Amino acid sequence: MKTYLDCFPCFLNQALKTTRIITDDEELIHFILGEIGTILKNIPLHNTPPETGELIYLTISEHTGVADPYKKIKETNIAEAKQFLPYIKKMSAKFEDKLLFATKMAIAGNVIDLGVNSEFNIGKEIETNLEKDFTIDHFHDFKKAVEKAETILYLGDNAGEAVFDTILLQQLPGKAYYAVRNLPIINDVTKEDAVAAGVDKFAEIISSGCQAPGIILKHCSHHFCQIFKQADLIISKGQGNYEGLSTEKYPIFFLLKTKCSVIANDLGVPKDSIVLKKANNK
Amino acid sequence: MKTYLDCFPCFLNQALKTTRIITDDEELIHFILGEIGTILKNIPLHNTPPETGELIYLTISEHTGVADPYKKIKETNIAEAKQFLPYIKKMSAKFEDKLLFATKMAIAGNVIDLGVNSEFNIGKEIETNLEKDFTIDHFHDFKKAVEKAETILYLGDNAGEAVFDTILLQQLPGKAYYAVRNLPIINDVTKEDAVAAGVDKFAEIISSGCQAPGIILKHCSHHFCQIFKQADLIISKGQGNYEGLSTEKYPIFFLLKTKCSVIANDLGVPKDSIVLKKANNK
Repeated sequence: MKTYLDCFPCFLNQALKTTRIITDDEELIHFILGEIGTILKNIPLHNTPPETGELIYLTISEHTGVADPYKKIKETNIAEAKQFLPYIKKMSAKFEDKLLFATKMAIAGNVIDLGVNSEFNIGKEIETNLEKDFTIDHFHDFKKAVEKAETILYLGDNAGEAVFDTILLQQLPGKAYYAVRNLPIINDVTKEDAVAAGVDKFAEIISSGCQAPGIILKHCSHHFCQIFKQADLIISKGQGNYEGLSTEKYPIFFLLKTKCSVIANDLGVPKDSIVLKKANNK
Repeated sequence: MKTYLDCFPCFLNQALKTTRIITDDEELIHFILGEIGTILKNIPLHNTPPETGELIYLTISEHTGVADPYKKIKETNIAEAKQFLPYIKKMSAKFEDKLLFATKMAIAGNVIDLGVNSEFNIGKEIETNLEKDFTIDHFHDFKKAVEKAETILYLGDNAGEAVFDTILLQQLPGKAYYAVRNLPIINDVTKEDAVAAGVDKFAEIISSGCQAPGIILKHCSHHFCQIFKQADLIISKGQGNYEGLSTEKYPIFFLLKTKCSVIANDLGVPKDSIVLKKANNK
């Protein structure tokens, strides 16, 4: 997905949010926002937003000396999400189509704002999510692809969400790879987080080789690209990976909630939709 | 009110919204956002937001050659608002406290998003607004001040809203001045707009001498400042004027809806509150 002009105010917003996690020094935050402000004129609109996301994040790290501001938040989110696994397992018994249930759980991980909601609300949100229909619903094709795939590449999104990803990973009969960010960026899942979430029990964890908050193939490692190109099925979680891959011609299914109106418009659905979409070009 | 760091993404958002009214040339909009991005580092946080608002607006005008992008929108809003005057007059008959009714109508003008809502919705919003209580309610003091004041200075906000201001102006027994922006800025009321709204029938229209989207005394004309300093009562409409004057020690009553969470926090009320607040320092 290209960078829309509407992304510009959002870049500043994300920078502000992240920098505030690190410091309450207003002068330093002002300086960093100023630095990011000067970058804006040089951002090519044909770049994908995660490319700029990476640049912003590196600017923040450089000026604060903090490389992983979300470390504690991620740990808490993973621990919090894990508490729901017994509850989810119990619910699963009621559902005939285990793959549909697991897919809905994987997207629930993307929907739920861990660390913001109470335990009561998370339980309720999981149930709401199960009842909610996909606004773009390619589940039929997805099911067929899952059944046939010998090799599956699953692209992780945020760290807490990885716990919910394990539910879907358990339903994949083929060999599964789970791709994580090479280095910490925002609250995205790294290898350490994926292991803490229990992903390693169901998939081989690999690094994308890229730090951007979304897969950008030209920045990924050779090893990752080989697996990407040979996989029979790619499951892409979340907005960042969609932004990076939306125009790629591979057997990708995008699984995300449209939390931002720019991405919602790009997909042609309302904001706050849940989407399971087969890539256009395959 | 000082500039909060949260204002920075919003500055870019406002610039984007205004520039898009003028042009759909993405390269030009990108260039302008880039120019505004480079300004950010030099914005003193002790400045009020309208000072930056003016700078942003002038940057847009300079690079597009368009000085009044909201001209047509303002004309439409004024015409649209005027259609509701007979309906408001009829409603007024039902209310015993004419000043309270008029004050609520003046704030309704600030609440309603003219040009966005249908006629049906505007009528409904006017009624809803009448039923809604002020979150900060200094009406008792306001009424006493109105009754005693020989000279009243009314600070206009946006153009369409000026039509609703005439309802309150009619209830002011003292000599009333209605202050407008010196030159067009966003959809704020200028002299031409105030006349079109019918304000000249009930008040003497004066220019603030300043183009910022909020009164900044140090930038206002000598003539305006004299009236400001001598007025027995100042009625300040909208967010921009609050931002410019919130720390001034004059007999001001602020009448606004908190459409932005930064201003809501500064006032200590929830977003989307309606407020009638006596200035702290008087």
